[in-house]
Amino acid sequence: MLSKTPAKGMRDFLPKEFALRQQVLAVIQQTYESYGFSRIETPPVENIALLTSKQGGDNEKLIFKILKRGEKLQNASDEELCDLGLRYDLTVPLARFYANNQGQLPAVFKAMQMDSVFRADRPQRGRYRQFTQCDIDIIGEQSNLAEIELITATTNALANLGFSNLTVRLSDRRLLNAIAEKCGFEGEQKNSVFIALDKLDKIGVAGVMDEVEQIAPGKAIGFIDMINRITSGKNPFKTCVEELGDYLPDEVRQNIEEILAVTKHTVKCGKVVFDVTLVRGMGYYTGTIYEVSAEGLSSAIAGGGRYDKMIGRLTGQDVPACGFSIGFERIVLLMQEKGATVKPACGVALLIDKKTDVNTRIEVMQVCAQMRQKKNVAVFTKIKNFAYQLKQLREQGYAEIYEYKCGALTLVD
Amino acid sequence: MLSKTPAKGMRDFLPKEFALRQQVLAVIQQTYESYGFSRIETPPVENIALLTSKQGGDNEKLIFKILKRGEKLQNASDEELCDLGLRYDLTVPLARFYANNQGQLPAVFKAMQMDSVFRADRPQRGRYRQFTQCDIDIIGEQSNLAEIELITATTNALANLGFSNLTVRLSDRRLLNAIAEKCGFEGEQKNSVFIALDKLDKIGVAGVMDEVEQIAPGKAIGFIDMINRITSGKNPFKTCVEELGDYLPDEVRQNIEEILAVTKHTVKCGKVVFDVTLVRGMGYYTGTIYEVSAEGLSSAIAGGGRYDKMIGRLTGQDVPACGFSIGFERIVLLMQEKGATVKPACGVALLIDKKTDVNTRIEVMQVCAQMRQKKNVAVFTKIKNFAYQLKQLREQGYAEIYEYKCGALTLVD
Repeated sequence: MLSKTPAKGMRDFLPKEFALRQQVLAVIQQTYESYGFSRIETPPVENIALLTSKQGGDNEKLIFKILKRGEKLQNASDEELCDLGLRYDLTVPLARFYANNQGQLPAVFKAMQMDSVFRADRPQRGRYRQFTQCDIDIIGEQSNLAEIELITATTNALANLGFSNLTVRLSDRRLLNAIAEKCGFEGEQKNSVFIALDKLDKIGVAGVMDEVEQIAPGKAIGFIDMINRITSGKNPFKTCVEELGDYLPDEVRQNIEEILAVTKHTVKCGKVVFDVTLVRGMGYYTGTIYEVSAEGLSSAIAGGGRYDKMIGRLTGQDVPACGFSIGFERIVLLMQEKGATVKPACGVALLIDKKTDVNTRIEVMQVCAQMRQKKNVAVFTKIKNFAYQLKQLREQGYAEIYEYKCGALTLVD
Repeated sequence: MLSKTPAKGMRDFLPKEFALRQQVLAVIQQTYESYGFSRIETPPVENIALLTSKQGGDNEKLIFKILKRGEKLQNASDEELCDLGLRYDLTVPLARFYANNQGQLPAVFKAMQMDSVFRADRPQRGRYRQFTQCDIDIIGEQSNLAEIELITATTNALANLGFSNLTVRLSDRRLLNAIAEKCGFEGEQKNSVFIALDKLDKIGVAGVMDEVEQIAPGKAIGFIDMINRITSGKNPFKTCVEELGDYLPDEVRQNIEEILAVTKHTVKCGKVVFDVTLVRGMGYYTGTIYEVSAEGLSSAIAGGGRYDKMIGRLTGQDVPACGFSIGFERIVLLMQEKGATVKPACGVALLIDKKTDVNTRIEVMQVCAQMRQKKNVAVFTKIKNFAYQLKQLREQGYAEIYEYKCGALTLVD
């Protein structure tokens, strides 16, 4: 017999689950629309060459690859076998979308996407092989007006979903680079050091120190000391600026200062703080990076940053770009844990006897058509175990249950 | 350089296209909810064994297959290479969903699905490799109450989208079987004859006759004559009943009679007619079949039927099931051709100078927050070519464009 379960790591959504998900998406979309973002859509399937173009970091190892069709495939490698794949994020497809449709898009394009992405990850609790991301991106805006709008809109969307006491942690890839230079890391060491730092909450300070010492012997203590001095300072950003001195370009300092100053007033449901330990995994970030965490939760519920070099890889000309992605599955899970539900759309259930004749059926349908102008109405045939049927209908959420008898509606329940 | 275009046969949707699609989906969902259907969702990826279980007919040849991960694949066949595939319709996944979740679903389950399906077809005008279907299905209802609700709800949804003068063509697979028996076709011939009949609008009567003669020599003339007598009669269903006599089971006759009688009163925006030439491609239909066409269009915009044997293949126990699928892409294309558009959600554009200082930015953001309680507001940096920027913003649909100058909003446009 065939398996009844969904493919490994993927899920069926029952009506109640679907209704909650759809409502959460509606709140996010409405909030983002109020900030001038409009939804676009790209296919979940992309050419494999785009997906494996070294923008996705480790995610590229998790791509579901689609077999070529109608060809003889003897002794072929993965690359020869597959021409397509399922997207692992929405940012790489957005860059392609922008490159493809640039002529029809405004100078500053504010895009919203809410769609499934796929990663052939080892499934575990709360982690799936298909999951929804809610992304907003501003393409074409060079100034940190982009970052400010993205941070304000995203925290506002989360607030509209009932999240409070949000913390937005903020940094800049160029600041990380200045730290690396000040500490004397060279070339490829820089990236490796920050991949190590990114694991701070998993492996702790000692773990990071070990890894950094492996990468650049003799330089771990200086690096960790500097990170410690910055994080333990009363004003970490001020301490960081002092530590880095001339290593920190003026525009980077100014960028963070401005974003902190403005978002202090625009983010109503939480605070924005500088965090020197913030790295963000993806390889494509070029400037500001940020993450949102909610009260009492260790890991982030949203994150993003600036990626000014990605579109240029497709068009030959760089276009400034900056995005923010909400981890939709995590949001929904947290809301469900807090007991969030959506009232079912079902209103009236109308029961008719199995043996109802044609003329009566016509009458019933006409009564329903009338009622549907105001309410949702579902017609069901009465089953033998009437009590069980009533119980089920009540559980489904039908507010009124009628029987049609002798040309009239009788309220059963 | 990487390709900027979507994968072959797939599409990007720009904001205006997306907005129209989303609105059409909302009208359909709202209509279907008023009939008691609730939305569910299944993954676009299914186990390949489910997709190739001989329910999809020719569509099974068009499956996008996903490569197994992390295995050595030397000299492997397609079957050994692939464990997953993209769904080619929403009915086969629905049957799996029902089998998987039966314990949590009501005795009569009214499901709605609006999702993408994928077929590696040769792309051509109006035909894509990814397209959206809007399906409703009633599972667990044995009587033609199911067919009547599905036909009424679907024609109503189409009417709410502005379609009028709809024709629902109706038949029953068991009636086709009776014709086959009366004409003396045997075993596998029956199916082949109806596959030939299904091509009537493409190859004409002569074409069908040729094919039938090939399938069952000597029997084509009798078959075509009978079809002709039925279609040319004043009341085709009455003629058909007379032609078939005892070959037509009473319950089949009664089924069609009842559906015609009731839907005559419930379908407001068109008519329901018996059509003996209706076949419907899929192999899984077991009873009533139907298709909707709109005025002035040859091909169908929606279709479906009863498939009482599909769920039993997964659970070991048959459950009555009946569905109707709207060809969403065709609907949207027709609406676009008629000039349908959706008003963009953008409201106010607020322009600030590139050099605006931090304090002024804070002011601007606070003004925006105020305005957003009533309107959608997007903030943009002024560009050098201001006239061009204004033109673009107007084209995007911004109703009001302001500049923030000297602590006040000035209406630019």
